[in-house]
Amino acid sequence: MIFTSMPHGTSVKAMPELVSTGLKIIDLSADYRLKDPKDYPEWYGWDHPHPDLLSKFVLGIPELHRQRIRESNLVACPGCMAVTSILALAPVVKEKLIDNDRIIVDAKIGSSGAGIKPTVATHHSERFGVVRVYKPVGHRHTAEIEQELSLLANGKVTVSFSPHAVNMVRGILCTIHTFPRGELSSPVLWKAYRGLYQSEPFVRLVKDKKGLYRYPDPKIIVGSNYCDVGFEVDEHASRLILFSATDNLMKGAAGSAVQCMNIMCGFAETEGLTLPGFHPM
Amino acid sequence: MIFTSMPHGTSVKAMPELVSTGLKIIDLSADYRLKDPKDYPEWYGWDHPHPDLLSKFVLGIPELHRQRIRESNLVACPGCMAVTSILALAPVVKEKLIDNDRIIVDAKIGSSGAGIKPTVATHHSERFGVVRVYKPVGHRHTAEIEQELSLLANGKVTVSFSPHAVNMVRGILCTIHTFPRGELSSPVLWKAYRGLYQSEPFVRLVKDKKGLYRYPDPKIIVGSNYCDVGFEVDEHASRLILFSATDNLMKGAAGSAVQCMNIMCGFAETEGLTLPGFHPM
Amino acid sequence: MIFTSMPHGTSVKAMPELVSTGLKIIDLSADYRLKDPKDYPEWYGWDHPHPDLLSKFVLGIPELHRQRIRESNLVACPGCMAVTSILALAPVVKEKLIDNDRIIVDAKIGSSGAGIKPTVATHHSERFGVVRVYKPVGHRHTAEIEQELSLLANGKVTVSFSPHAVNMVRGILCTIHTFPRGELSSPVLWKAYRGLYQSEPFVRLVKDKKGLYRYPDPKIIVGSNYCDVGFEVDEHASRLILFSATDNLMKGAAGSAVQCMNIMCGFAETEGLTLPGFHPM
Amino acid sequence: MIFTSMPHGTSVKAMPELVSTGLKIIDLSADYRLKDPKDYPEWYGWDHPHPDLLSKFVLGIPELHRQRIRESNLVACPGCMAVTSILALAPVVKEKLIDNDRIIVDAKIGSSGAGIKPTVATHHSERFGVVRVYKPVGHRHTAEIEQELSLLANGKVTVSFSPHAVNMVRGILCTIHTFPRGELSSPVLWKAYRGLYQSEPFVRLVKDKKGLYRYPDPKIIVGSNYCDVGFEVDEHASRLILFSATDNLMKGAAGSAVQCMNIMCGFAETEGLTLPGFHPM
Repeated sequence: MIFTSMPHGTSVKAMPELVSTGLKIIDLSADYRLKDPKDYPEWYGWDHPHPDLLSKFVLGIPELHRQRIRESNLVACPGCMAVTSILALAPVVKEKLIDNDRIIVDAKIGSSGAGIKPTVATHHSERFGVVRVYKPVGHRHTAEIEQELSLLANGKVTVSFSPHAVNMVRGILCTIHTFPRGELSSPVLWKAYRGLYQSEPFVRLVKDKKGLYRYPDPKIIVGSNYCDVGFEVDEHASRLILFSATDNLMKGAAGSAVQCMNIMCGFAETEGLTLPGFHPM
Repeated sequence: MIFTSMPHGTSVKAMPELVSTGLKIIDLSADYRLKDPKDYPEWYGWDHPHPDLLSKFVLGIPELHRQRIRESNLVACPGCMAVTSILALAPVVKEKLIDNDRIIVDAKIGSSGAGIKPTVATHHSERFGVVRVYKPVGHRHTAEIEQELSLLANGKVTVSFSPHAVNMVRGILCTIHTFPRGELSSPVLWKAYRGLYQSEPFVRLVKDKKGLYRYPDPKIIVGSNYCDVGFEVDEHASRLILFSATDNLMKGAAGSAVQCMNIMCGFAETEGLTLPGFHPM
Repeated sequence: MIFTSMPHGTSVKAMPELVSTGLKIIDLSADYRLKDPKDYPEWYGWDHPHPDLLSKFVLGIPELHRQRIRESNLVACPGCMAVTSILALAPVVKEKLIDNDRIIVDAKIGSSGAGIKPTVATHHSERFGVVRVYKPVGHRHTAEIEQELSLLANGKVTVSFSPHAVNMVRGILCTIHTFPRGELSSPVLWKAYRGLYQSEPFVRLVKDKKGLYRYPDPKIIVGSNYCDVGFEVDEHASRLILFSATDNLMKGAAGSAVQCMNIMCGFAETEGLTLPGFHPM
Repeated sequence: MIFTSMPHGTSVKAMPELVSTGLKIIDLSADYRLKDPKDYPEWYGWDHPHPDLLSKFVLGIPELHRQRIRESNLVACPGCMAVTSILALAPVVKEKLIDNDRIIVDAKIGSSGAGIKPTVATHHSERFGVVRVYKPVGHRHTAEIEQELSLLANGKVTVSFSPHAVNMVRGILCTIHTFPRGELSSPVLWKAYRGLYQSEPFVRLVKDKKGLYRYPDPKIIVGSNYCDVGFEVDEHASRLILFSATDNLMKGAAGSAVQCMNIMCGFAETEGLTLPGFHPM
């Protein structure tokens, strides 16, 4: 088993040699996440040198591709905000409950999402206390989200994705604004979410009437491999709002990789991933 | 001049006696912001006891109602997230550039917005490091935003408004997702914003290609009475994203009140409001 | 096994009945930590109603009282800042390396140390971003620290203890300023620390020449049951500075309780306490 | 008037040419703060190339050197933590109330004190939520503090100075642990502080029995040019604890420079420095 955690654009070149070893590979870069070679020049600005390899990689989202991950030697783990968005949207896209043209993901993420290299954007006196939109248009995770949702919808899905930097280290909250195709009731939505996730070890449906943690909340999920998802119907504006929260360093990165490794190696899927979170922090 | 800063629902009862004094009044509560008496049972859960007084109050947004504020004795200051949203949206609604049915305000606000009374939601160990949606549906500021935009549109405007608590004390960022009626170019948008705001002392259009502060950002505005506004066209998803940032204790509250007082009293409008902000903090 | 986590002053009354059950008891309150009944009126302001029980409780610091904890049914867990201070000081007090009259503990603690009840002092807008001294004189943990150090010194030890609230949720850093009795060299100090702690599972000596984490640091310890200790000799001012860091909810509270339970019940001492920390957060 | 804000070690070389212009100069670097040329190799590691110029510079602390600042063309502004420490200690050192050999300054400072260049130490995910000692021995501000206190004491004063990074952007809190020469009463201390500071526009004595802000506190001082000072007698341990708080970018840097400029130019000393602070933030 090889874990590759090279910068985006580096992994792409090293991969053929690694693949030739015949070992199982889990790649944490973006270089083999997208299936359509044309997506690379569009979203990343370079042509993919090994387009033939793209179809051999499975995207490491067990909730959608568990069987293929089990059978594959090659897994590309998804982007942290991509997987968080996809898991919230998958049930309602699959069940054709929302308008596929008008999906808005307003994402919020902690500073560890920016990596370990210091920059002026991550300098404490400039980054502390912020809520800052940083790539409201054209963020690369859009491509992964659209790819996966289009597969589920069996048709084109378009997503507007706008991430914000917020004043914490770990965690992602996605607030997803969608427009229902018709009238939506809570039971229909519960059924869609339970249908997809009722046996999932790391997806929890969070929706309470009262309490501080009645919606998915990074504060309570950090340290765990969970992706909490929830929803609310806005009858006033005919809108369906979805929420999802992950720890970007767990389900958004290393946690997903371990979960995939467990599946690929025939281990218990939750092995090494049982920390229930770390609250308060 | 009387400033009334009573809790919502208290000001409403005290007002007739205060009005009878003939003094100028600036009310910081929500009790005289809405013009349609039916909005109070819908959004606040109580019938307004003095509906006749509602029309006598002007909403304290000088950018929209300066002349009426100057001539009035009675001003109701808007909600902090309402005024921040309205100022971003006013130009594009007025110019009929967006779909009035599908306006989404994803707001983020610091803890001072919750007032001075300690609760479990504002307890440091539960509030520190959070990004938390707290009233994704049915927030009362929706009514103010819709009232003002409908006036500008000369027709019904529907808004989805979802506020989030973030880990800072002061500041509001509104990320507003809208759908253009047709193709939108930057010059058309610049023209709309400049048309409404070019002479405004407290509204700045912020839109740069580079730099940390290329969009409106609470980090750089806190301490000032500015409302910074900006926009970005998402051609990929046919969306127009608007941004606005204020200090909720300045333009979102006391600052607006002082600005209105200056107008009502014939003072220089910027008197007492010239602090350019307070960065870094 | 009974864990009692009642407020200070409540546990004291309930204890005789609990003790009469014959079950093992671990008390997390301050009510049975001090051995001298006269300390209660002095530090807590009330007379202890069951002074005879005090000597039956062992203070839950395995590094100092492991054998007695193993043989006892009754353990009182120490205060979070007390145990953090004691573990840094124990080696140098035991080895008579410092002046016992001039020990200064300048402690810094996160907001979870204040408990779960919201107050104005823990209100986010007043507590965020602070470094605030809150009980520079007369803090109750002083009594525990002096009790334990006096035992080790076989003589009276006087401590000045001043805690500060800092802007984090979990964690304690104690910076301890002491005055050496004579010239001190690093090898002598290493020997003192290793002598006491070399077999300890939860005390680590942290002292590096380079790097961000060259001294004990709550940032890297939070989530674990470790107490990291370190020192630095200030030759210029003839001072010895000690450092210690814990997670106040682990080694400073529940972690110590579990560690004591493991000892009392004959379990592996590290059972349930193997999380190495949680970084970055 | 020239303000020089060059990095330490750069200003030193540029100064002779600047001085030759005959203009008034305020230097914000450390290069002309120390009066004894031997201090530079000891604390900064390099020999001072222009030792003759050192005596021509006045240290920019108006509370101690107002008359000389007024008469001088050359002012060197003190380090941020140095001036904060000196102002707390000056009255008790001048009145010979404490032991001059055993002064301990435990300082806490926000991230803006580290300057604008991003490093791993200021990277948000490593700097957020910290309380971290970073230079417990040998910090350069020690030299300035000792120089000024020795002048006041008319004899040698030795200081132990240990700074900590805390999770805020602006602000310094110094907790200063000292040992009284004899018994100390509050009136004697009040008299010492009032004697030195009663006419000072920017030093406030803060000492209350109740309330959140009963001691000097950066939270309430940030944005202002104040240095708040206070004290507490610890009778239990025969200790005198002093507190001082400043905004490191105001009284600790630019604020002091402006105050000195006002004095040197004959302006009102508080000109441009009247912001009372910025709370809450």
